[in-house]
Amino acid sequence: MVFLEGVRLIEEAVEAGVHFESVAFSPALESTERGRALLDSLENVPCRGAYVSKQVMSAIADTESPQGVVALVSRPHFELNDVVHEGASLIVIADQLQDPGNLGSIIRTAEAAGANGVITTRYTVDPFNHKALRASMGAALRLPLATDVHRADTVALCRQRMIKIIASRPAERRPIGLIEDASLVETSRAYTDADLTMAFALILGSEASGVSEDAAAQADEVVHIPMARSVESLNVAAAAAILLYEAARQRNFERMKDEG
Amino acid sequence: MVFLEGVRLIEEAVEAGVHFESVAFSPALESTERGRALLDSLENVPCRGAYVSKQVMSAIADTESPQGVVALVSRPHFELNDVVHEGASLIVIADQLQDPGNLGSIIRTAEAAGANGVITTRYTVDPFNHKALRASMGAALRLPLATDVHRADTVALCRQRMIKIIASRPAERRPIGLIEDASLVETSRAYTDADLTMAFALILGSEASGVSEDAAAQADEVVHIPMARSVESLNVAAAAAILLYEAARQRNFERMKDEG
Repeated sequence: MVFLEGVRLIEEAVEAGVHFESVAFSPALESTERGRALLDSLENVPCRGAYVSKQVMSAIADTESPQGVVALVSRPHFELNDVVHEGASLIVIADQLQDPGNLGSIIRTAEAAGANGVITTRYTVDPFNHKALRASMGAALRLPLATDVHRADTVALCRQRMIKIIASRPAERRPIGLIEDASLVETSRAYTDADLTMAFALILGSEASGVSEDAAAQADEVVHIPMARSVESLNVAAAAAILLYEAARQRNFERMKDEG
Repeated sequence: MVFLEGVRLIEEAVEAGVHFESVAFSPALESTERGRALLDSLENVPCRGAYVSKQVMSAIADTESPQGVVALVSRPHFELNDVVHEGASLIVIADQLQDPGNLGSIIRTAEAAGANGVITTRYTVDPFNHKALRASMGAALRLPLATDVHRADTVALCRQRMIKIIASRPAERRPIGLIEDASLVETSRAYTDADLTMAFALILGSEASGVSEDAAAQADEVVHIPMARSVESLNVAAAAAILLYEAARQRNFERMKDEG
């Protein structure tokens, strides 16, 4: 079960066709046009409903100014196979991400960029966590998500399906032969030099330490995002946005058109 | 004054050469090698210092597990002219952003992408707010930031300096002439079709409603980021990352190399 709160998220759940278990609303919902419209659309959704007082709603809701509607819906469930399917061309693997806001933002961007789905490995924050769900703006209810998966299983299935695994890490520079410091060579390609038109899964690491050594070792290609020298790293959700949209750009935004 | 907390942020403030007013540390700082190294580097920073007990540190610090160091530093101050200077080629204008995490992430990405600086207009959250500072990973201490500026003044100075103002908004589609629904034309160019090699300032709007009508009307060009149809919008920090890095890509990552 997933707990939803607020007009927007519940509108999105109705649109996504999620299975509703129960809904509770208070007088506040009827005070706005949008709230009344939501109430109308909920009449066609088979589930238990309860009209509660403002006080009860305040006790149920997490936010300070509840919009007068909360719901319990079934947690959408997808197997690894549903995400890494035959013909999948763009996948995100969130490996040990801790921040629900980042994960939600990544799921939102992944959907926008035309990804087939998102996989979260063990020790990654739950995408149906309240904060993550809110940050995803409902994308977690629409996009196929396989959660709590072993990274090794994901990697194995991607290989079987000929889906390349790409990791991004800050560039390392190594001296060339015996020549002094001035002659350094980057040990990975810039992301813009990689062919992102082929089917691939982007693996993302934790906020604190990025993609782990283990995960990088399993990647078919490690790329880097060029950065001003004063900067150590990018926020993981920002890096994901840059990489997913470079893929979308190289593909001429085709998946966005297909879905129109 | 800006209140800093934690080893990482205070390391970054030392490196950025920020003016320290006072520092307080507790035994916890001496328990790690990194903490002792920071303590050493703080010895060369002229400011008041105090050694406090664990209990006092807990009372001062905001986090639950204080790393044993807090500081008060002077707030870096830049005028609008210092950011929108002759020769500036990439600027971010954060117009009425409310979320400190988003603003911090945008400042971090802006520095990485080689921006000259960031401007925050009135009614935008303070970039030296604790959460924003943390999300910027110290970028707010390094990058020129002009805060609490009138948007009209910013726009006027950009025009004077021949810096284009670019806004990004979801694509609108309009019917062509009298032809039916099927023939729609997007009312703006995709961001990848815009010339981002010219000097420009990217104007970003609030999380809830995006770039305002007023701001869009003042922009020299409005672009859109193509998105899957099921998605209404992107997170503002994700959108900023996509746009700033498209500019960096079109410029062959030159500013990143220059700074090396």
